[in-house]
Amino acid sequence: MPQQPLDLKPLFEPAAVAVVGASRSQAKVGGMLLSNLLGAGYRGRVYPVNPAAALQGKDIMDLPAVASAAELPDGLDLAVVCLPREQVLQEMRLLADKGVRAAIVLAAGFRETGRLGFEAEMELKRIAQGAGMVLLGPNSLGLISTSCGLNASFAIGQPKPGGVAFFSQSGAMCVAVLDWAMSLNMGFSRFVSLGNKALLDESAVLRYLGADPETKVILGYCESVEDGNEFMAAAREVSAHKPVLMLKAGSTAAGARAVSAHTGAISGSPAAYRAAFRQSGVLQVAESAQLFGLAQVFATQPLPTGPGLAILTNSGGPGILAADACARSSLTLPRPSTDTLSRLTEILPSFASAYNPVDILGDAGPERYRAALTALLADAQTHAVLVLLTPTAQAQAQATARTIIEAVNGAENVSAKPVAACFMGREAVRAGRELLQAANIPCYDFPEAAVEALDALYLHFRRTQKNPPPASSCDSEENLSGGSCDAPWDEEARYIVEAAKTRGLIELSGVEALEAAHAAGLPVLTTGLARTSAEAVRLAREIGLPVSLHLATPEPGPATGAWSGSGGETGPAGSMGRFARLGDEEAVRHAFLALTSRAARLRPEAYVTGCLVQAALALPDEGGFELVVGFTRDPQFGPLLSFGLAGVTSELLGDVSHRLAPLSPEDARHMLREVRFYPLLRGARGGAVVSLGALERLLMAVSRLALRLPMLVGAEFSPVLAGPGGVHVAGARLTLG
Amino acid sequence: MPQQPLDLKPLFEPAAVAVVGASRSQAKVGGMLLSNLLGAGYRGRVYPVNPAAALQGKDIMDLPAVASAAELPDGLDLAVVCLPREQVLQEMRLLADKGVRAAIVLAAGFRETGRLGFEAEMELKRIAQGAGMVLLGPNSLGLISTSCGLNASFAIGQPKPGGVAFFSQSGAMCVAVLDWAMSLNMGFSRFVSLGNKALLDESAVLRYLGADPETKVILGYCESVEDGNEFMAAAREVSAHKPVLMLKAGSTAAGARAVSAHTGAISGSPAAYRAAFRQSGVLQVAESAQLFGLAQVFATQPLPTGPGLAILTNSGGPGILAADACARSSLTLPRPSTDTLSRLTEILPSFASAYNPVDILGDAGPERYRAALTALLADAQTHAVLVLLTPTAQAQAQATARTIIEAVNGAENVSAKPVAACFMGREAVRAGRELLQAANIPCYDFPEAAVEALDALYLHFRRTQKNPPPASSCDSEENLSGGSCDAPWDEEARYIVEAAKTRGLIELSGVEALEAAHAAGLPVLTTGLARTSAEAVRLAREIGLPVSLHLATPEPGPATGAWSGSGGETGPAGSMGRFARLGDEEAVRHAFLALTSRAARLRPEAYVTGCLVQAALALPDEGGFELVVGFTRDPQFGPLLSFGLAGVTSELLGDVSHRLAPLSPEDARHMLREVRFYPLLRGARGGAVVSLGALERLLMAVSRLALRLPMLVGAEFSPVLAGPGGVHVAGARLTLG
Repeated sequence: MPQQPLDLKPLFEPAAVAVVGASRSQAKVGGMLLSNLLGAGYRGRVYPVNPAAALQGKDIMDLPAVASAAELPDGLDLAVVCLPREQVLQEMRLLADKGVRAAIVLAAGFRETGRLGFEAEMELKRIAQGAGMVLLGPNSLGLISTSCGLNASFAIGQPKPGGVAFFSQSGAMCVAVLDWAMSLNMGFSRFVSLGNKALLDESAVLRYLGADPETKVILGYCESVEDGNEFMAAAREVSAHKPVLMLKAGSTAAGARAVSAHTGAISGSPAAYRAAFRQSGVLQVAESAQLFGLAQVFATQPLPTGPGLAILTNSGGPGILAADACARSSLTLPRPSTDTLSRLTEILPSFASAYNPVDILGDAGPERYRAALTALLADAQTHAVLVLLTPTAQAQAQATARTIIEAVNGAENVSAKPVAACFMGREAVRAGRELLQAANIPCYDFPEAAVEALDALYLHFRRTQKNPPPASSCDSEENLSGGSCDAPWDEEARYIVEAAKTRGLIELSGVEALEAAHAAGLPVLTTGLARTSAEAVRLAREIGLPVSLHLATPEPGPATGAWSGSGGETGPAGSMGRFARLGDEEAVRHAFLALTSRAARLRPEAYVTGCLVQAALALPDEGGFELVVGFTRDPQFGPLLSFGLAGVTSELLGDVSHRLAPLSPEDARHMLREVRFYPLLRGARGGAVVSLGALERLLMAVSRLALRLPMLVGAEFSPVLAGPGGVHVAGARLTLG
Repeated sequence: MPQQPLDLKPLFEPAAVAVVGASRSQAKVGGMLLSNLLGAGYRGRVYPVNPAAALQGKDIMDLPAVASAAELPDGLDLAVVCLPREQVLQEMRLLADKGVRAAIVLAAGFRETGRLGFEAEMELKRIAQGAGMVLLGPNSLGLISTSCGLNASFAIGQPKPGGVAFFSQSGAMCVAVLDWAMSLNMGFSRFVSLGNKALLDESAVLRYLGADPETKVILGYCESVEDGNEFMAAAREVSAHKPVLMLKAGSTAAGARAVSAHTGAISGSPAAYRAAFRQSGVLQVAESAQLFGLAQVFATQPLPTGPGLAILTNSGGPGILAADACARSSLTLPRPSTDTLSRLTEILPSFASAYNPVDILGDAGPERYRAALTALLADAQTHAVLVLLTPTAQAQAQATARTIIEAVNGAENVSAKPVAACFMGREAVRAGRELLQAANIPCYDFPEAAVEALDALYLHFRRTQKNPPPASSCDSEENLSGGSCDAPWDEEARYIVEAAKTRGLIELSGVEALEAAHAAGLPVLTTGLARTSAEAVRLAREIGLPVSLHLATPEPGPATGAWSGSGGETGPAGSMGRFARLGDEEAVRHAFLALTSRAARLRPEAYVTGCLVQAALALPDEGGFELVVGFTRDPQFGPLLSFGLAGVTSELLGDVSHRLAPLSPEDARHMLREVRFYPLLRGARGGAVVSLGALERLLMAVSRLALRLPMLVGAEFSPVLAGPGGVHVAGARLTLG
């Protein structure tokens, strides 16, 4: 449910804060929160609410206690509710009456505990919505906003100010990230524990952080997203101008089951999340360690304008490991230009390698590092530099760190190229590492992690430069109805599906499914159902010879599935269920009898309705492909389209691409290009050259079909015959809800 | 070149050590080394050799200086040569004369610097070999043997004693690993910097460490291995009873190029190294971070006897991330048994999840951890446990660490099941983490790394239990000649290949190649070359109808390559180069004319020698496969066999398995099972059921062919037709050296 845009300023930058349930005791949440709030240097006014203390006229941490929420000034920006669950609703009603603009509810015991908790959470939400109040939580650790010195959390520790924002559904991840970040000396703008997300969720926070001038890069951890479309719209908007990195727990089927057990929510498929992140420009990180590695480089470095990475090292081994990591990434290791090479040759001793990795040898001191780094930063082939250091006797980690900082700052275009370092080891390089980090040059433990981070930076550059995510295309009326698909649409498609549903069918296949697909604008081969051999001949005559024959049975499974067997479309007298390219009427009659009698003999239990008679392609499509296009419906994100080779191979090899509908033309292009067999479609190694335009139109038409016929739970078009003769849908199966 | 077994005891456990070039100055290698040696508590006698000091009658670090190597006692165990390169050879001759049993040469400037250095290194090697002296280096950082307090290295730092041995070709990796290990408090038995490996290489050190009672797990870093067979024999022997983990730099093509630039050695293909490691039981780690992660669990934990992992956590998010990592591994997440479930339900609060991950909630204190961990350790479904902790207010990292240690030590079969921990965050959990590590329970930063380590432990268990690597099968005469392959071998295969070589051919294809393959015992379809249509008919009659016809041209490339096109073998009148299953003589004649005239029309530049007439399979092989089997020759490891689907798909999708010859029957089995399309060969989803025995025999025969005909640079058998009708080689190409 798209919400009206919330003004989150009272939450993130409040002029005054009430702590409801404030306490003197550090063992209590209300005490930890108040002490965090006062300790972080918050400059606004603070009202501790505590009836007992107020009754006794006592101060709490030197602030006069307020007896009740009812005594707070009207229109206060933020109230943090530190009370146990039982008292939360009552207090929230008071806060709503006083026109408090934002509230954070810390107590657990709501939705995550079952039906009663769920109802309490719904009531909480109603109170907030009714008063136009922003609500963070419940079950939240709170929020930190370093720019205004606000630490309204009961987490331990206060991060230093900086450009990184972090939001998380999991409180545990908040605690861990905060602790890690402090040990890495990483600076944060905002730190948000979303908790149960009764009102404020990833989408709303993303939009706020996107517009927040204090935030340079956004990190998120999520387990599930409630409103997939709203999330994608927000992410698209923000990622167009600010990097968004997300760790999605439950990125495997087993993990997704664990999410459901944990949150009680039905989590969408991992493939749908991957597609959603990709289509909305979010960089999905695979493991928790990466979140930190990537955040450091995104928070401090400019984007590289190309893939060329120069590796500068004082030892062979780590340089080779970095080169290996580079080969696994989208970065390249360009040879330095002739100018750079001759400059390096001047600088370096004779046994050094001036190529890439540039190995300046184990006896390299700080000055050799400076000279080589300066030369590489000036090289046009170099878009990013990785500086590796092994603590040899001569390396002097601290002094070298200083020369690296000077070389980077002294480079002609200061900060024009990203630089990362990897100082190998721990204690021997700790001081050098800290110098670099303090100077905003990220320094990694291992070469592979450094390359991975620079690679992500480049991928983000490529995404935002070449393919800016289309601006919230899913909002427009045009797109909701299938949008930019230019294939004809006939409402007949809807009537066929609705009629089948009325008949109580759960699946539509054979001629009816193909007719619906045809009406929906898909390029379907003309097909008829023959119940007798005479009918087959008549149909063949109507359709025009040559035709192919397929066994028709309403059951799903092998019999109709023979479409997608391993034989080629031009196969002669093939597998159990089909005959292709029958040239004359006698052959049609013979094929009908052979198919039906064989079926009766081999699978007497099968209910055979006859044979499908289908137009054969004008030309035998040599080297053509049998493809499959389809969709399922994801609970969070709606129609999830898939594209791959028909038959078992692509599924078995995981070579299937996914995108969510509505598909932009860009999405359709990428779906084709993402599968590993794509080069074959371009004629590589004897593959037939297929019209990509026709395939893209087909994908767009399937996207529209999925959006216009919401009663379809899924669809599979297989085989789609694609070759020089065109793109033709030869089989279809529609699943009804 | 297999060396005679060296006795490395004088090197690793010397009774006395001479330091040649000992110095008082810590700025000199000879000073650093002597001070490391004395500082580590070495209990044997130490002789500092320094002519100047001896002349002046001075002590060096309280030891009387010896004037020259010539004055050392006869038969001394170890001399460490700390002199500059220019003086090394002369001093080594003196040491050899005195019968010194082992020497470490630290100086660089040998092979890695070009021709002169290479010659000096060869001379060094001759001196050592002539005197039967063990030689480590040159260009080595030295060696550490904690059991006898020997630190004969000039690296900084002294690791504590423990069960991990590390050897490395790269000095930089030695420095870095030592520094990391000390910060992780990891205990080492031996630490060896191999340097240039003039004499002592990975193989010799592996054999020593394999027999070394101080060493529990062996870690290695290598860039290249000189004698592949010797390495594999040593690794097989050792890995059968001790885990060997290796990081191979240059595991990508780009990295392998960087290795060549660095070491000057021609490095074998990454696929050959992967196969060599796998076939000799070595666990290859992909990235440097893993080396540490895996080492910790191998050094301290027993092997799990099954894949069942129980995840115990006090927070949802990290548990889900661990479940995701588990899904990507070979581990499973079994549901606890009914007994365990009811025990957990007793212990845990009502909102906790007793399933797996077992979430004992954020308010879990040490006692709840103890109870749940004890229950899980007693569960028969659980083979390994991962304990996750997020530092909530109640978690008390230190106290919980203590209860974990007690629960593990108190479990019925102490140390029967491996346990690893992951305490999220840094400072908040540091003390708890250190307690665990001191008690030999590895504790990780991130859940994914912990799962990865436990997975490696299980993989090692599975490898050593189910499939012990065949004991040095490559040493026996039988195996060198192709061994256990029971297909007939006819020396005719050798004559055909030698005759072609004499004629100056660089490639053999068509009928001759198939004849050689037939003589080598491969199941080849009978094939003849017809130059005219009449000859084609005659051949068809001889071979027996039906036959298939293929265009014959001596060129490599598309014309003959049409074998492996995308059409099915049973295709009718197919692609440019072939006709399959011609049932009568008229069809044969027609096909011959059609093929040759079409070729003349479409590719007039092609030199067509006629058509191959080949027996067609008795039955059309519906759903059969076109496979490719072949080998190339790797410079380090010899014949590298490959197996995959013919055509472009498997190559494009990287779905090819590799093994080195000689193949054990076990290797052949695994080659088939490793490809992702394997389920299809077992009849999954409509694939034909193929005789795996026949395919294994074919692989064994190709392995023997590669070993018996060393003049072949490579071979490709494609297509290999495999279906219910059997396994048949229909095309062959042999490349001559």
